[in-house]
Amino acid sequence: MSRAGAQTLIFDNPPAIAAHISYAGPKEGQGPLSEWFDVVLADDLLGQKSWELAESEMVRRAVEQALKTAGITAESVQAMLGGDLNNQIIASSFAARTLGIPFLGLYGACSTFIQATLLGASLISGGYLDNAVCVASSHYCTAERQFRFPVELGNQRPPQASWTTTACGCSLLTANAAPGALKVVSGTLGKVIDLQIKDANHMGAAMAPAVCSTIEAHLAETGRTADDYDLIATGDLGWIGRNILMELFHHDNVGMPDEKLVDCGASIFYQEQDTHAGGSGCGCVASVSCGWLMKRIERGELHRVLIAGSGAMLSPTSCQQGETIPGISYAVCIEGGAE
Amino acid sequence: MSRAGAQTLIFDNPPAIAAHISYAGPKEGQGPLSEWFDVVLADDLLGQKSWELAESEMVRRAVEQALKTAGITAESVQAMLGGDLNNQIIASSFAARTLGIPFLGLYGACSTFIQATLLGASLISGGYLDNAVCVASSHYCTAERQFRFPVELGNQRPPQASWTTTACGCSLLTANAAPGALKVVSGTLGKVIDLQIKDANHMGAAMAPAVCSTIEAHLAETGRTADDYDLIATGDLGWIGRNILMELFHHDNVGMPDEKLVDCGASIFYQEQDTHAGGSGCGCVASVSCGWLMKRIERGELHRVLIAGSGAMLSPTSCQQGETIPGISYAVCIEGGAE
Repeated sequence: MSRAGAQTLIFDNPPAIAAHISYAGPKEGQGPLSEWFDVVLADDLLGQKSWELAESEMVRRAVEQALKTAGITAESVQAMLGGDLNNQIIASSFAARTLGIPFLGLYGACSTFIQATLLGASLISGGYLDNAVCVASSHYCTAERQFRFPVELGNQRPPQASWTTTACGCSLLTANAAPGALKVVSGTLGKVIDLQIKDANHMGAAMAPAVCSTIEAHLAETGRTADDYDLIATGDLGWIGRNILMELFHHDNVGMPDEKLVDCGASIFYQEQDTHAGGSGCGCVASVSCGWLMKRIERGELHRVLIAGSGAMLSPTSCQQGETIPGISYAVCIEGGAE
Repeated sequence: MSRAGAQTLIFDNPPAIAAHISYAGPKEGQGPLSEWFDVVLADDLLGQKSWELAESEMVRRAVEQALKTAGITAESVQAMLGGDLNNQIIASSFAARTLGIPFLGLYGACSTFIQATLLGASLISGGYLDNAVCVASSHYCTAERQFRFPVELGNQRPPQASWTTTACGCSLLTANAAPGALKVVSGTLGKVIDLQIKDANHMGAAMAPAVCSTIEAHLAETGRTADDYDLIATGDLGWIGRNILMELFHHDNVGMPDEKLVDCGASIFYQEQDTHAGGSGCGCVASVSCGWLMKRIERGELHRVLIAGSGAMLSPTSCQQGETIPGISYAVCIEGGAE
């Protein structure tokens, strides 16, 4: 049986992470996690004609670098699971076009990298694939003009707004583990949770209830507490959303020591960088996971980490029609190879 | 081993289809497949305030009807896999919000239902889920105003244009097969294939090469020919796209008898209904699969059917930026329970 409870999948043959690559834009590269990214872009246009092509190029480069790092050819990878925030996920699908790897397009908003990791690990553990690439990206300039305003307009942003990161994270999962490799050992699916937030600038509030739901389901179904993890990392709630999440845990009597919970969106920027509530976008949890978190597990600083990505299910159309903003969250547990 | 070749997954514990429900809009309900749909909508607004909410309501109703037909509660379903053409797949995610089933949002454009079936079957066969809902939808009015023009504008459509169906298909996959149930026995992942089509009105031409690639991979990797299937159904190439596909098979020396290949987009409308190239949209292959195809297998008219959904990877932004339109195709093989 490969399932614990209603939402949690246990990977009996846990896939190893053969490579993990993180890309960050110039602003992200000036943040506190600067040294942990594999590549900090000097030019966030990557020599392309449009921001959309630039984001797609970032995805392509990250995947190729992951393949190279792992010493695996594209022909040996049976699936690329990924997505992004662009309408019809063109950044990922156009990257898949040049890579030639069978593509499984996903949309979990900013949680997409964790959704991809969960599905990729399921397919490998189930014996369907030998190798799978999991990838997600976001770009400040593609997201701003699609979801909000063209950046050239210089609009003011409210204090609760988050900053869509220019970033990409890519991991290469494999059934053929090298000794000591990181492993994806379990994952928890998420429900779409809606506490009726209508402020499209307040993603942290829209997503925190879903993150709370998924983490609580994970802990309950695995019979664990926060103490069983060296770290619990949430997607991109930002500073305000992280506080809301802690309140929700408190309300539900779920023990969550303050030092145990880090948020990728609240970690990727300094408060002084004027991003307001912190970082967001599919690339946030992807790049922080593939950089900071996985590298710290590899160094032995952490052994078992739960990463709960979070996504806000909205579109400009749904917001303009007055709809509320539901959230979703997927979690995966990653463990170091050495005790 | 649960894999044949590079792209094809064999389901060692093939999930059964416990229920399959097809919804069609008024125009689709006047087509040749009218009697095969479970529900033909008299009002394509479904009592909602917007087309987007109407599409979401159609998804919700289809899933609830599938649950009821199978006699399974929402609480017993561990995942809803689905998507649609709306930006950020709001039709599916908003339906998932009301259903309370853990949600895995997918984007495979018009191939989404087959992508969902392939992934859902993998997760069930792998022992991760007991029951999964696979669903995809499209709505003429949400797609027209998002991808082309508001319908009120009354724009002329070129002869190669397809008509986005108002339709939804939903299947409930289960590990607990009743005797004689249909089964999903294998699936083939698709690569993103781009033959440089730039005409966003000519979806059939953009998608046919991907369908050709996936069907040829399926046949090669399973060691089969078209003769091993009672029917091969393609997604929504339409009349022109189907002809292109037949030419591609001929070019590749792949035997494909004309009567063996039906296209859902070329089957859902009469030529006299003035849809030009035929039907398209995620709901097309979904509703035709869940209606016409699965019901014919159940009646014993067909035993083994290969369904290859097809999707065009474009967005209005990518087209406006002059990008070409790559296609993708996923295939699943469905067999009847009785020989």
